[in-house]
Amino acid sequence: MAKSTQLIDNEVFQAYATYTAIVLLKMMLMSLVTAYFRITRKAFANPEDTASFGKGDSAKKYVRTDPDVERVRRGHLNDLENIVPFVGIGLLYALSGPDLSTALLHFRIFAGARILHTFAYLIPLPQPSRGLSWSVGYAVTFSMAYKVLKTVLLL
Amino acid sequence: MAKSTQLIDNEVFQAYATYTAIVLLKMMLMSLVTAYFRITRKAFANPEDTASFGKGDSAKKYVRTDPDVERVRRGHLNDLENIVPFVGIGLLYALSGPDLSTALLHFRIFAGARILHTFAYLIPLPQPSRGLSWSVGYAVTFSMAYKVLKTVLLL
Amino acid sequence: MAKSTQLIDNEVFQAYATYTAIVLLKMMLMSLVTAYFRITRKAFANPEDTASFGKGDSAKKYVRTDPDVERVRRGHLNDLENIVPFVGIGLLYALSGPDLSTALLHFRIFAGARILHTFAYLIPLPQPSRGLSWSVGYAVTFSMAYKVLKTVLLL
Repeated sequence: MAKSTQLIDNEVFQAYATYTAIVLLKMMLMSLVTAYFRITRKAFANPEDTASFGKGDSAKKYVRTDPDVERVRRGHLNDLENIVPFVGIGLLYALSGPDLSTALLHFRIFAGARILHTFAYLIPLPQPSRGLSWSVGYAVTFSMAYKVLKTVLLL
Repeated sequence: MAKSTQLIDNEVFQAYATYTAIVLLKMMLMSLVTAYFRITRKAFANPEDTASFGKGDSAKKYVRTDPDVERVRRGHLNDLENIVPFVGIGLLYALSGPDLSTALLHFRIFAGARILHTFAYLIPLPQPSRGLSWSVGYAVTFSMAYKVLKTVLLL
Repeated sequence: MAKSTQLIDNEVFQAYATYTAIVLLKMMLMSLVTAYFRITRKAFANPEDTASFGKGDSAKKYVRTDPDVERVRRGHLNDLENIVPFVGIGLLYALSGPDLSTALLHFRIFAGARILHTFAYLIPLPQPSRGLSWSVGYAVTFSMAYKVLKTVLLL
């Protein structure tokens, strides 16, 4: 049995794999940022997470929401809502035979837009920074979906 | 190097690609519906989003939750919870060698159920419309997972 | 046209398919646990869900949040945040030609960690049970991403 598959030898697929790994790692980073803010702001979601602050009411008061924590969580959810379609549609797009340069253009713009979106959300930058970076990633995914449906449509 | 991959020439995979693109685009549409309700209901999640309504307290009052916005957001999250398993398990299912007609049946029912679910959630239709459409999509994904595990089980 | 694709004959891919189906089914289970707690705690998110409890104020009071329901929902969201990267990066990893034994080690540890995480969240077990099981799954996904980027990096 062949150890590696042919798919991974395809350059467009290699580009897809690279950028998918990057944006998924970026999304995973949001968990660490959330944890950082939960600990520094002492704002936890579960009673058992505050046990190290003592027992009873002295610990319970740390089960609360905090604006900075909620901001990161909104950014994380926005990543899920946008990176999931990119990963799914991007895979189909990579398999639909696009030019390497066109594919790289799509993947690079998407990854750049999502990284910018995270900075715009967390700093936060004044609008329309976040709105624009969100739109660019959205448009790239839409463009890939169009290419996929044009290539494979089988209803 | 071959420009397109063999995978995309497989009819079952073409059907998978078509319906995955459709349900992911449908899920992405929820972002636009959320934005529509946030703007018309003037209910935003971030202070920087209300800057165009003026400064200080006159703008701050628009950082609030609204029942219509929250409804769309619940529908969007429900999409994530159900469409992610469809995309992941559906890919494995498409590669497990099902009959084209059986595969199309699964994909069509799932896509129909999720579109119905969105209407049932947003209008909203009286229960059990939403519950039933949710169950149908859930059952389809379960059926595909069963076929996958029957074909490949390697623990 | 070949009915099945070559991919599914690859043992590493079979292992990926098995564990991806398992963790996605586990994630889907969270919907049923949420429904169970919503019904037993009588805590619903939508007015139309409480119609069977009567009309007007007698039903409206069941549109509320409940600590047990919210706990399951946090567990479900944590699954989405962690299982989505596993499914995406795991696919690329499976295609990058790892040894079967190394791949199985990654997949088994991830699946075990996420099942433990769910029990730690729902029972709940005292910390650091949940934190540790989360970290293990996170580290496995990170390790797979490292292998993917080492193999395919095409920026």
